[in-house]
Amino acid sequence: MKKKDRIVIFALPGNEFIANRLSESLEAEKGQAEFRAFPDGESYVRVLSDVSDKKAVVICSLDKPNDKFLPLYFLCRGLEEMGANNICLVAPYLAYMRQDKAFNPGESVTSEHFGELISSTVDSLVTVDPHLHRRASLSEIYSIPNEVVHAADLIFEWITQNVENPILIGPDSESEQWVADVAQKANIPFTVLQKIRHGDADVEVSVPEIEKYMNHTPILIDDIISTARTMIETVRHLEGLGMKPAVCIGVHAVFADDALKDLLGTGIERIVTCNSIPHTTNDIDISELFVDFVSRIEGVQQSAALEQ
Amino acid sequence: MKKKDRIVIFALPGNEFIANRLSESLEAEKGQAEFRAFPDGESYVRVLSDVSDKKAVVICSLDKPNDKFLPLYFLCRGLEEMGANNICLVAPYLAYMRQDKAFNPGESVTSEHFGELISSTVDSLVTVDPHLHRRASLSEIYSIPNEVVHAADLIFEWITQNVENPILIGPDSESEQWVADVAQKANIPFTVLQKIRHGDADVEVSVPEIEKYMNHTPILIDDIISTARTMIETVRHLEGLGMKPAVCIGVHAVFADDALKDLLGTGIERIVTCNSIPHTTNDIDISELFVDFVSRIEGVQQSAALEQ
Repeated sequence: MKKKDRIVIFALPGNEFIANRLSESLEAEKGQAEFRAFPDGESYVRVLSDVSDKKAVVICSLDKPNDKFLPLYFLCRGLEEMGANNICLVAPYLAYMRQDKAFNPGESVTSEHFGELISSTVDSLVTVDPHLHRRASLSEIYSIPNEVVHAADLIFEWITQNVENPILIGPDSESEQWVADVAQKANIPFTVLQKIRHGDADVEVSVPEIEKYMNHTPILIDDIISTARTMIETVRHLEGLGMKPAVCIGVHAVFADDALKDLLGTGIERIVTCNSIPHTTNDIDISELFVDFVSRIEGVQQSAALEQ
Repeated sequence: MKKKDRIVIFALPGNEFIANRLSESLEAEKGQAEFRAFPDGESYVRVLSDVSDKKAVVICSLDKPNDKFLPLYFLCRGLEEMGANNICLVAPYLAYMRQDKAFNPGESVTSEHFGELISSTVDSLVTVDPHLHRRASLSEIYSIPNEVVHAADLIFEWITQNVENPILIGPDSESEQWVADVAQKANIPFTVLQKIRHGDADVEVSVPEIEKYMNHTPILIDDIISTARTMIETVRHLEGLGMKPAVCIGVHAVFADDALKDLLGTGIERIVTCNSIPHTTNDIDISELFVDFVSRIEGVQQSAALEQ
């Protein structure tokens, strides 16, 4: 049996673009499934493609995760019932990465709990730049075979093709590693905003050697743009320092409430995101990042089967 | 240790009324927990009461279940983490009871899947009149200790106290058992609407011996009022036959979309529901139905522990 006969790629509603791209790259069958909501708010899921003895790849970005989990779970259980021998979850955005410890007694460590729930729902997982703050690797939270892929190379490509004379700027020292990584690959200058806090409302901000960068376009990058408060604050500081309007780049376009409107209201040149979460600001396609893992996990399973 | 020291009763948001009533009846501690939504749509759950070595009772009605499951799951995992030795779910309304088989190939049997998910989340379950259509008992779907309690006695009480000269009417032969059960307890007459279908739009409707009931108030009862289509149709038939305006009673006030407005628009005398789902139409309190199971499951666990 040829490789393309053995993988079937399903998209939860809203994930069709990446599913189509991945299906093309892998020459894999696009899975057909029906998703409906009953008038009482319950979900209906039907698998229409033959998945018997095949690897089912399920694309489901997990932003606003609460009402997405059950349809995903029902699809996966349906795929299992229909004989899929492996279910690989491609979650371009992975939820519940922030509460990775109990900061106060009694706090539910949702990062671990969600990890266990997903690990019991699918057989393997690949995701883009999850918010690994206090954890060294995703395997500390997810017990299934998993891989983290990074958007940095694609962001570098985008900057090179779209911005003349860029200067990458990290909003604080915490961001330095992430920004430095992208900057090094892009072979463009980077620096970190220096802040000296004199009081709650009195913060002195500077950019080291700013005179060198007055004709550069500042680039701000963050992994998740949610409330965008840090980014908006940084944009205002740069404006105050007389720099050119910034280009803002986010990996994950979460955009809570009025975040996009507020960010655009600062007069930035442009806001661009990866398509890990479908959004009007998407301009960097991350579909290709999943090809290797999806092919490989398939290979691993196949080898294991042959050894038995 | 006294019984009231060993049970702590928690309410998911919206379930406070039943939690308070149950806490009073059982003389049990009311559990304190914090529920919040982050701007990105993720949930935060914190257990504030001491549950170490105690039985935690969690009240969570599961109407519109998709965005309720994760907060419930996180609370239960948090309770487990904090040392609760037993988690009993009181789900006044239980979701995902309809899709209890694959009517078409590939349909995810959500009834079973949801049952397995809940069974792995809590240790025991009690619910009111679940929609057991093709299943003889809840234990076919839920592997944990469980009990179904019935609202019929409370509905009978309500009718006796609130309606003069009632006549219970079943909309079709499928409803007869349910209506007959309530009618017998209420010691009031009941009958079933007779329908002869001459074509898609041509249905002849009659009430046997209708002349005896022209001064009675027709009572319509259904377990779930969701779209209310059947009830509205029945109300119209009764009106066409010249009967008095009906009193409509539902156990579970699901009320999808405009169902309540449409039902009220038919000119019924009143619509009344049990409070298994919080709703403006609630007038029958079902809290007391859970007392026995919650006490008993606690006793069973205690006995088991003593035997070890």
